[in-house]
Amino acid sequence: MSGDVTRYGSVIGLKTEKLDYYKQLHANAWPEVLEQISNCNIRNYSVFLKQMDDDNYYLFSYFEYTGTDIEADLARMGEDETTRKWWKETDPCQLPLSNRKEGEWWASMEEVFHYE
Amino acid sequence: MSGDVTRYGSVIGLKTEKLDYYKQLHANAWPEVLEQISNCNIRNYSVFLKQMDDDNYYLFSYFEYTGTDIEADLARMGEDETTRKWWKETDPCQLPLSNRKEGEWWASMEEVFHYE
Repeated sequence: MSGDVTRYGSVIGLKTEKLDYYKQLHANAWPEVLEQISNCNIRNYSVFLKQMDDDNYYLFSYFEYTGTDIEADLARMGEDETTRKWWKETDPCQLPLSNRKEGEWWASMEEVFHYE
Repeated sequence: MSGDVTRYGSVIGLKTEKLDYYKQLHANAWPEVLEQISNCNIRNYSVFLKQMDDDNYYLFSYFEYTGTDIEADLARMGEDETTRKWWKETDPCQLPLSNRKEGEWWASMEEVFHYE
């Protein structure tokens, strides 16, 4: 790890009835979607799944951003037609948090610790 | 990213009244604790904080493990006296999930996606 890297952690709900479909999609993610992630200066991208104490399932994402304008790059993600098609599959699986910031789908989390 | 790396994502509750103390501790983490993290083959360790829709706060951790025996290495963490003292500060801040696995404090999450 070196250079100018910013780490992003985010969270969103996952509908229980969509568990299998979401996992299946991500076990075989579409090559164009992955390529667009790299194009947008995002790397080392993981998504974790957990059932919380409210019995609902949540997805937690972690990625590292190596560019200089995250808003522009995230907007650029959606310029890829395949990525937009992918979101048409994934969005209906998800339940955004009610306290997410304006404009967010996945709710951003606050980094309180980092050690290389 | 290369070599044999396993990524671990975990979650735990954070008592609301301990928010400030927890953040303050981690903004100035003790050098011996950090050194012991490295000694135990853990790197790129981040903790994120989020208030979820149940109004409670949760911590989400992400780290990468480069060793060959995670159980042995995690057990070895506690052989360091300073790390044990650190846990005496952090443990009372936290509220473990009720569905965590036996032996867990932080509840492990399932990785459902990864892209380098």
